[in-house]
Amino acid sequence: MTQRIHNFSAGPSALPLPVLEQAQRELVDFQGTGMSLMESSHRWPVYDKVHNQAIEDISALLSLPEDYQVLFMGGGARAQFALVPMNLLAEGCAAYMTTGRWAEGAYKEACKLGAADEIYNSGDSNHDHVPQPGQCSVPADAAFLHYTSNNTIYGTQFQHTPQAGDVPLVCDMSSDILSRPIDASRFALIYAGAQKNMGPSGVTCVIIRKDLLAHCPDSIPETFNYRNMAAKNSLLNTPPVFPIYMVGLVAAHLRALGGLEAVAAVNQSKAALIYQVIDNSGGFFRGHARKDSRSLMNVTFRLPSAELEAAFVLESEAAGMKGLKGHRSVGGLRASIYNSVPLQSVQALVALMEDFQARKG
Amino acid sequence: MTQRIHNFSAGPSALPLPVLEQAQRELVDFQGTGMSLMESSHRWPVYDKVHNQAIEDISALLSLPEDYQVLFMGGGARAQFALVPMNLLAEGCAAYMTTGRWAEGAYKEACKLGAADEIYNSGDSNHDHVPQPGQCSVPADAAFLHYTSNNTIYGTQFQHTPQAGDVPLVCDMSSDILSRPIDASRFALIYAGAQKNMGPSGVTCVIIRKDLLAHCPDSIPETFNYRNMAAKNSLLNTPPVFPIYMVGLVAAHLRALGGLEAVAAVNQSKAALIYQVIDNSGGFFRGHARKDSRSLMNVTFRLPSAELEAAFVLESEAAGMKGLKGHRSVGGLRASIYNSVPLQSVQALVALMEDFQARKG
Repeated sequence: MTQRIHNFSAGPSALPLPVLEQAQRELVDFQGTGMSLMESSHRWPVYDKVHNQAIEDISALLSLPEDYQVLFMGGGARAQFALVPMNLLAEGCAAYMTTGRWAEGAYKEACKLGAADEIYNSGDSNHDHVPQPGQCSVPADAAFLHYTSNNTIYGTQFQHTPQAGDVPLVCDMSSDILSRPIDASRFALIYAGAQKNMGPSGVTCVIIRKDLLAHCPDSIPETFNYRNMAAKNSLLNTPPVFPIYMVGLVAAHLRALGGLEAVAAVNQSKAALIYQVIDNSGGFFRGHARKDSRSLMNVTFRLPSAELEAAFVLESEAAGMKGLKGHRSVGGLRASIYNSVPLQSVQALVALMEDFQARKG
Repeated sequence: MTQRIHNFSAGPSALPLPVLEQAQRELVDFQGTGMSLMESSHRWPVYDKVHNQAIEDISALLSLPEDYQVLFMGGGARAQFALVPMNLLAEGCAAYMTTGRWAEGAYKEACKLGAADEIYNSGDSNHDHVPQPGQCSVPADAAFLHYTSNNTIYGTQFQHTPQAGDVPLVCDMSSDILSRPIDASRFALIYAGAQKNMGPSGVTCVIIRKDLLAHCPDSIPETFNYRNMAAKNSLLNTPPVFPIYMVGLVAAHLRALGGLEAVAAVNQSKAALIYQVIDNSGGFFRGHARKDSRSLMNVTFRLPSAELEAAFVLESEAAGMKGLKGHRSVGGLRASIYNSVPLQSVQALVALMEDFQARKG
């Protein structure tokens, strides 16, 4: 096999090698069934077991209380930008925190589909931070509060769960779900495209507190209705079988690693390695995110000039690192270090950063 | 490897063994890139090539004229039941032909989202047929005409393309796309969930005549808008990478087999084998579909009693055949014989049918 690249892609991104190897072994003949899992009807017990085990492992990882349900849907997290208001905004006005590009996209869809207010916008400082505890007041009559826990492009992340009082809290957790423990009982609804921490692209996970299902209007299309999907355990129509299978393998892998406490500890040490180099560089590397808002998933930073940034990207690629060029909205570099990016990749990056500064600083 | 089952599932269903074997070989290290294709950003050239090659192969197989575009979307064909009217029914009234369960589902979604008329309904005879040429008149001012080319549950199939005059013709081709050549220029829009003839579940193919894109309203959610998806070559958001890759492998495989003329010839001979046994059984096997409406994809038939039907299913399973039990709406047996179900599986079924009748008839 070719040497594995150091994968710093913002997503889709690295998957655990043992998971890929298992998927490879099982691809043509799934566990002695004489067929690929992709060839199984989604109504057959062989798939049912995979489907329900994935739900069980996600529920266990997140310590979901009994009154929550895990759904698998297609169309990506951006479809959820619309489905959340379609299901939960039949009346009233929703509150949105705009802390980045995807948060803004979610807010815009809500405005198309109902009434929504932006109660926070960090755009004036190019989204270099998220609100800190107590900084943001939520109207007590809001239909729900929507926020994005990690902002992939800008490299910021909520290190607390916003206080929403009795207002249902909705979170786009696409880029940090399963990266750390959460108190699920604080949330009314969580959604996440799988392709950063959960598995490959092609499936979106929706975790909903069951009492909300009563609010989903019958007037919306049937496959967009959370209540319909919940009633059929996400098997209302043919689900994305292979992506769900992969999500299940990843979830089982994370449980075997010790669960989200263990995963979070590794994620913290990975991020700390890079932030330490930034902080110790005497200003050669400049982080985009404010220190109180730093993401453990996406580390965004600049170098003294666009030329040095381009040179750094070139050198990183020569050293087997991919995906470090930052998003054009921020410029510079971005190291996405999701769960499945190994410590060795981060060590390789940090070594290059130190060496590069020693030569060019 | 375990012996491959004879897979008669209504979908997801059999995939070509060489395609599965290629996917297996490439799964961990995609073509020497040092990563799985699932780990690639959808913005990287390695994925771009896969994406565009899949589109090119589908376009070539269907001989799509220049003014058509192939889109990949998530959410399944049932999401398209809603997206078609959301995009194309901003005004006017659409015409629907209800020839089965999914046709009915599409019609119901249209009624929720705009004005729709049912111009044909075969429900009185439990959907045992589809309209024949000239039997169905389409209002000249209809916003579009929607029909389902193959009715999976009932085993019926249009053997002609309905005359729609200047009315845009929309077809749910989920269960027979790529099974035979079509004159694409007759259609305004074709959609198909991949999981029967195109590949695994998790992606829906939409083929749209580009002039229609101008009609898609800005007021609908961004990822539901065909114009947005077309403008970004289906890369508006992260696509379902692995399902699209598999669809591409299947399309390339079908081209290598000689294209859809060759594929259709095999499909015809497969279906003919089963229908001949039914027709020569002296009434022991009774087809559900009227002869003029018989499907080449799903063969539905009854035996003299429910007990014999149950016994037949048991014997088929003992002989390595899966998925032959019919849908509860029709009862009896259903043999789904999509493109990738090999002739040998059909031969095995036919041998069992003849033997079973000889013993029990």
